[in-house]
Amino acid sequence: MEIRRDMNELLSWSKQDEDPFENTEQADGGCGTNDFSGVHGKENGEELTKHFLQELLNILLAYISKSMNRSSKVLDFHHPHQLKEGLEGFSLELPEQPDNLEQLLVDCRNTLKYGVKTGHPRFLNQLSSGLDIIGLAGEWLTSTANTNIFTYEVAPVFILMEEVLLKKMESIIGWSEEEGDGIFCPGGTISNLYSILLARYHYFPRVKAEGMQALPRLALFTSTHSHYSIKKSAAVLGIGTDNVIAVKCDERGKMIPAELESSIMAAKAKGLEPFYVNATAGTTVYGAFDPFTDIANICEKRGLWMHVDAAWGGGLLLSKKHKVKLQGIEKASSVTWNPHKMMGAPLQCSAILVRQKGLLEACNKQCAEYLFQPDKQYDMSYDTGDKTIQCGRHVDIFKLWLMWKAKGSEGFESQINHCLENAEYLYYKLKSRKDFQLVFQSKPEHSNVCFWYLPSRVRNMSPGPDRDRELHTIIPKIKAKLMEKGVVMIGYQPLGQKPNFFRCVFSNPATQKQDVDFLLDEIACLGAEL
Amino acid sequence: MEIRRDMNELLSWSKQDEDPFENTEQADGGCGTNDFSGVHGKENGEELTKHFLQELLNILLAYISKSMNRSSKVLDFHHPHQLKEGLEGFSLELPEQPDNLEQLLVDCRNTLKYGVKTGHPRFLNQLSSGLDIIGLAGEWLTSTANTNIFTYEVAPVFILMEEVLLKKMESIIGWSEEEGDGIFCPGGTISNLYSILLARYHYFPRVKAEGMQALPRLALFTSTHSHYSIKKSAAVLGIGTDNVIAVKCDERGKMIPAELESSIMAAKAKGLEPFYVNATAGTTVYGAFDPFTDIANICEKRGLWMHVDAAWGGGLLLSKKHKVKLQGIEKASSVTWNPHKMMGAPLQCSAILVRQKGLLEACNKQCAEYLFQPDKQYDMSYDTGDKTIQCGRHVDIFKLWLMWKAKGSEGFESQINHCLENAEYLYYKLKSRKDFQLVFQSKPEHSNVCFWYLPSRVRNMSPGPDRDRELHTIIPKIKAKLMEKGVVMIGYQPLGQKPNFFRCVFSNPATQKQDVDFLLDEIACLGAEL
Repeated sequence: MEIRRDMNELLSWSKQDEDPFENTEQADGGCGTNDFSGVHGKENGEELTKHFLQELLNILLAYISKSMNRSSKVLDFHHPHQLKEGLEGFSLELPEQPDNLEQLLVDCRNTLKYGVKTGHPRFLNQLSSGLDIIGLAGEWLTSTANTNIFTYEVAPVFILMEEVLLKKMESIIGWSEEEGDGIFCPGGTISNLYSILLARYHYFPRVKAEGMQALPRLALFTSTHSHYSIKKSAAVLGIGTDNVIAVKCDERGKMIPAELESSIMAAKAKGLEPFYVNATAGTTVYGAFDPFTDIANICEKRGLWMHVDAAWGGGLLLSKKHKVKLQGIEKASSVTWNPHKMMGAPLQCSAILVRQKGLLEACNKQCAEYLFQPDKQYDMSYDTGDKTIQCGRHVDIFKLWLMWKAKGSEGFESQINHCLENAEYLYYKLKSRKDFQLVFQSKPEHSNVCFWYLPSRVRNMSPGPDRDRELHTIIPKIKAKLMEKGVVMIGYQPLGQKPNFFRCVFSNPATQKQDVDFLLDEIACLGAEL
Repeated sequence: MEIRRDMNELLSWSKQDEDPFENTEQADGGCGTNDFSGVHGKENGEELTKHFLQELLNILLAYISKSMNRSSKVLDFHHPHQLKEGLEGFSLELPEQPDNLEQLLVDCRNTLKYGVKTGHPRFLNQLSSGLDIIGLAGEWLTSTANTNIFTYEVAPVFILMEEVLLKKMESIIGWSEEEGDGIFCPGGTISNLYSILLARYHYFPRVKAEGMQALPRLALFTSTHSHYSIKKSAAVLGIGTDNVIAVKCDERGKMIPAELESSIMAAKAKGLEPFYVNATAGTTVYGAFDPFTDIANICEKRGLWMHVDAAWGGGLLLSKKHKVKLQGIEKASSVTWNPHKMMGAPLQCSAILVRQKGLLEACNKQCAEYLFQPDKQYDMSYDTGDKTIQCGRHVDIFKLWLMWKAKGSEGFESQINHCLENAEYLYYKLKSRKDFQLVFQSKPEHSNVCFWYLPSRVRNMSPGPDRDRELHTIIPKIKAKLMEKGVVMIGYQPLGQKPNFFRCVFSNPATQKQDVDFLLDEIACLGAEL
């Protein structure tokens, strides 16, 4: 079989320090590309690697520079069929035979070119945005270390860093030295799934061996504004989405404690067994904070597990000014907190934090002896793999650890405050403009700001279904135009009875007030044409 | 509050192309370190970033070079308490105030120094090993693009690349053009969890809304040698580990079809409802391949879902020489395949592949309107987020796509064949030496080779419990010495009645026959002292 030697060499070069054993597969040829013609041959795998990665670095640096540059577009939109047909010099198809290194670098450039610059100061589309350079450095190192954070044996430093980070986050939540356990997970939905899994095991440990059939029909409670992951997890865990009771919110999106009480009573009356309440710190659309102390009191009275989904709002705990919004979170049995959102860590970085020590392991351990040998020479309590529902687990913590070193807690505080100032600025701008309307009137608690654009013909309509229908169709049209133009990105959705509206969120510290102004002007400019 | 300006600047510099709006938080100071004293000030965020990332690249290149160098140690072992107490210049504690950039680079160097070089040709400890340079480049780009693969809107290129990769893998399995769906997941355990979740939904769609209470008591089947993730998932899904029936294997670790038949009958007789069988392509310890065609026939006859856990063995499908071992996999309803194992992709990269189109979405969709708006301007079937049990999902596919471009299918074939040649070489070496004993006599099917070291006093003992006890305690002692010395890493475990034995696995194409010789000589040298 014909194998390109340059590629082979780049992939598996290794240095000999003793007589080489019979080794017929070593590279021996050149690579024949322009960029790399100077670096080939048996001894030069290392040179070739350095050269290739340096070229890649240059591409990435150019991309970072563009991401930070307001005169660059946020995206260069193409429809799926356009990309699939293959744009000039960029085919997605997988070959039988290798491409050369130069072509790979072209592919890298194109991949970035046709993607979305989530680090751009005008990418306001998602709860996760920004491009933290230290966090990025952390990710590059993590992928170079290329290990699994499941045993101390293969990830000693990362295992200890995770412990340090979890302890720090637990103490920020307000748990005591004796309390607190946790694990980093692949995203907030999985973290929320853990919380339900743990609550179920805590009250009904038989479930692990015997399954749901051995249990009464469970019921869990979450607000109408909460994240859909609670329902998704109930389906996965075999509890069923019908048994997820949606608790009413006030017009600001906060769970109404009296509604929680009456929902619990109603479920009990139907023969269900309530066991778990999810409260949200920073809802996805409105950015609302549930009244944690009131909910905690209800959970305590009724003997229910209280989880706080602070995936989005957890970062505010680092701000002396804003942490009051999370008062009562310390009474939670578990907390989801995603540093990849408000703290600006690169994707992914999400923690499930559990107040009761030992529960994670009791719930999840299966004692696989091939991995967690009980007779290792070190303290095996550092093998965290049996705490998780995974086996191998990606190292999601080094970037956060490095960012914390770089910023200190104070640096996080300052960048979070800055994002909330942007939201407040947008709020006052919207209040002052006739061509925009806020979805709710009160000042934003988090960095979410929800609003409609009102073209002049809509401005003259009286509130009602006709006007709502107009608004509902106008927003996606503006969004489509924004995508085509590509200079700013913002999300939209309907909610309950409310027609489609824009949701602006700030989590990128590079975003400034000028970007807020730019956003409104763009929407007004494109919307006026409709 | 006092904020270090240099750090602030590095983190959030952005270029102005219009009159800057009031912007009091822009950086204005120097950074005061030696390395970075030349690059600071308001205009130099970009220079500072380039300089910092270039310094990081140099550190990573030096690490890569060491990883590939046989005269470097694989690891420099320290106990947890040693690392926690803080080694010289390396503290894990998180500060209130920022550290400077120079210190961060020191931290990066130390993190690598005290870690484990999983790319070293003599790291033989885990199913995932090696450091593929192209895959690594793919990871660096992925983290720089920093996006979520859940909507086409924010990940257009990656969404399409995932589709291309899944189709390729489905066609390699042997499914027709009309068949095949899938998703990349955070690891093989989650992929296996998906398979059970999908099977349950396929036969009992009511479970999504009503939970397990609406179902008969389910039973699933997996071999005694299979991965513990099947039991773990049964616990998570509310099925219960008692309802996971372990099917006996032959002495080579392969499921015995007649045993599967009788286990199914026995479960039915007890009133359980069999619905799912997991067959394994490459067991974790022995590397055994179950007889897929026989198992498929049983599943077909009894109307059961057949899953193949090919997390470890899937790569062999790319080898014309070895793919025969997976014959019958095309009859599976779902397949787990981890390119981060035998194909050498960096962690993580795992796929769940599903024969029936549409099932993933039907099973998992919750239609969150804030994310998957039905009125977007593009073909929304490319928004894959509702297929998953996650919400945000890490981009695990670009590295694999780039590696495929770099190697072609032929390149993967050649590196997989090479790994299996190493295993065969080790097998014959062990057979020829008096001081080692194979755990089973037949030639390895995969790259796993299992063996005991026999110090001379054990060699003279007759087989039986006394000898087994000796072997059981000797292996961890040798392992501890290997860890302390740090020149080669290999795993061990007991299995069933067998006392602790070494399991050597090859997945790093940089490993050569000389490394195999080195391993045996090291074990013999350290073991002889015992």
